Amino acid sequence: MYNFMFHVPTKIYFGKGQISHLEELKESGRSVLLVYGGGSIKRSGIYNTALQILKDVDLQVFELPGVEPNPRIETVRKGVTMCKNEDIDMVLAIGGGSTIDCAKVVAAGAKYDGDPWDLVLDGSLVKDALPIYTVLTLAATGSEMDCFAVISDLTKNEKWGTGSEYMKPTMSVLDPTYTYTVSPKQTAAGTADMMSHTFENYFTKQEGYLQARFCESLLETMIHYGPIALEKPDDYEARANLMWAGSHAINGLVSEGSADAWCVHPMEHELSAFYDITHGQGLAILTPVWMEYVLSEETLPRFKEYGVNVWHLDPNQDAMQIAKQAIEKTREFFFTTMKMPANLRAVGITDDRYFKKMAEKAAAGSKGSYVPLQPADIEEIYRRAL
Amino acid sequence: MYNFMFHVPTKIYFGKGQISHLEELKESGRSVLLVYGGGSIKRSGIYNTALQILKDVDLQVFELPGVEPNPRIETVRKGVTMCKNEDIDMVLAIGGGSTIDCAKVVAAGAKYDGDPWDLVLDGSLVKDALPIYTVLTLAATGSEMDCFAVISDLTKNEKWGTGSEYMKPTMSVLDPTYTYTVSPKQTAAGTADMMSHTFENYFTKQEGYLQARFCESLLETMIHYGPIALEKPDDYEARANLMWAGSHAINGLVSEGSADAWCVHPMEHELSAFYDITHGQGLAILTPVWMEYVLSEETLPRFKEYGVNVWHLDPNQDAMQIAKQAIEKTREFFFTTMKMPANLRAVGITDDRYFKKMAEKAAAGSKGSYVPLQPADIEEIYRRAL
Repeated sequence: MYNFMFHVPTKIYFGKGQISHLEELKESGRSVLLVYGGGSIKRSGIYNTALQILKDVDLQVFELPGVEPNPRIETVRKGVTMCKNEDIDMVLAIGGGSTIDCAKVVAAGAKYDGDPWDLVLDGSLVKDALPIYTVLTLAATGSEMDCFAVISDLTKNEKWGTGSEYMKPTMSVLDPTYTYTVSPKQTAAGTADMMSHTFENYFTKQEGYLQARFCESLLETMIHYGPIALEKPDDYEARANLMWAGSHAINGLVSEGSADAWCVHPMEHELSAFYDITHGQGLAILTPVWMEYVLSEETLPRFKEYGVNVWHLDPNQDAMQIAKQAIEKTREFFFTTMKMPANLRAVGITDDRYFKKMAEKAAAGSKGSYVPLQPADIEEIYRRAL
Repeated sequence: MYNFMFHVPTKIYFGKGQISHLEELKESGRSVLLVYGGGSIKRSGIYNTALQILKDVDLQVFELPGVEPNPRIETVRKGVTMCKNEDIDMVLAIGGGSTIDCAKVVAAGAKYDGDPWDLVLDGSLVKDALPIYTVLTLAATGSEMDCFAVISDLTKNEKWGTGSEYMKPTMSVLDPTYTYTVSPKQTAAGTADMMSHTFENYFTKQEGYLQARFCESLLETMIHYGPIALEKPDDYEARANLMWAGSHAINGLVSEGSADAWCVHPMEHELSAFYDITHGQGLAILTPVWMEYVLSEETLPRFKEYGVNVWHLDPNQDAMQIAKQAIEKTREFFFTTMKMPANLRAVGITDDRYFKKMAEKAAAGSKGSYVPLQPADIEEIYRRAL
């Protein structure tokens, strides 16, 4: 096990009706920037509920609506300007990972003198941030309980992840009933996203035994409840388990002490940056291809464990057989059970003209990962995924 | 899944040499009460290392040595008096769970006007506490990352657990090499203690799927590495995995959203209160007896899962067979593999004269647990464990 620091200071209020705890925002000041996306929180009533609670504790509310699915730096800049001009005390994100990511960089940008894009390129520049609160409406990114944010500058085809201790939320409300209205497409994409976070930490050179077992627990939970949530969108146990698993997939529990650099996420970020596709769909498409590509005698033991412990394959079979079956199970899960688009063409990417450029950028991002890949490897993976 | 609040604010520095981070104590003031046990930290050199770091950041150090294995309220009172008289800013526990538990109640008592025993009987009376820091030297109780403390008043044969959000440590140093010198007896008892914490959360009426899987991950880790640590005391991976698993067994990860009241711990607390035996040994002795006692058609599904997922028994067997084998495996693990005393006689309890009285007290403590037990049931369990 590597040396590590583990610190998850975010207070989580989990369950039905926990939004009432937004009254605790009064502990962080008198004004709040409410950050949200396309207006679904107005249709669902969460917006009104939240506003009433904030009003009841005399908080002045400013609004930053319209955060995009792949949040743009332009929106971050707008939020930062509002925070600075109005001297806002805290941010409250109500939405999924994109909204929360945007709010995090707004909170950090409000305490930074330069352009917030600097903070996206280098998280170590974040030296302070406004307190960040979140109400989660989509189980996927884990942003509600971690230090990360992913922001895009589509004018440059750039999409980068950043992270800072200062960007960990102070408090997050996780009410699984808020995800009842999440569409089948987004439910599947969210499940794929959290599974990918877990894979990134599971397929690692440095054995962390406990962390690996925790990864398997998360994967089993996602595989068990993803299809139930798809079938029955208001199944509380399904939504609750997916939501809580999504948070733990990326809050440090399965990475600290164990993980290498990530490899599939950097590849997918280029897909989203060049084609603006749904992140979770891109991950699902790339994952089985990547698994096949890196399966070797050296990586076999972990793939075998994956097959036996997660998919409950017969451990007495030949190891390579188990590994291949496990990859096939993964493919079936995403593309048959969860009904996701199975290749890049199915999400509208029909040619390979940017693959070379994308692969070069992705290779930089995946340096030091489980199986280090060269640009030519990544280009080949994109091509096989086409 | 129940509604819950999850909050683990303790910053963990995990790994070799992480004690250097004790310099962060300077953030909490200028004076510290150093709490420790019988002097093993002096022999190991941790005491001198810590003192030097504290000195380097100009902290004034007061000392409360001699904390007992089942920490006494008298020692807590002594610490509280020192904190109040010397206006001490924070406490630093260096040791195992007993030392940390003592330090926690000292920290709370320093901010309380009455007798600290009040806080042991009712954690809700704790409204504030001095900042608590710990350096862990024994993987067992998980006190380094939770809100609980167990304190005894042997003048009254009383041993009670208490808990408060204010008693969660600010920061804990977990250096697995500090546990290399832990004796086989204590290594086994510590492993049994953390397994029992996990069992208390695993055997529960309210299904928390993810939490149950996490429990299995913890149990597998403890069962895998307990014997290795016994065999090879300086095996880093074994000590590291046990240490980190012990923390997660009780910090809320596997209890929040899922668990009922505990049942075996209250029974064991009476053994320790009346006979001052080693807590982990008492738990190991009671656990298989308790398992057999509560195994029924109703509890069968969870016992079957325990057998299949933790002990990897053949799932195609008859469920009751699997359950009984799993209990037998548990018994073998504690008493053969980990070489622990297998019954109460082996720890010096040779008569049943207090059983009735103990059972009455334990029944109060286990109210609302997995299988609610009456005093007569508990008396019978003690008797079978004799």
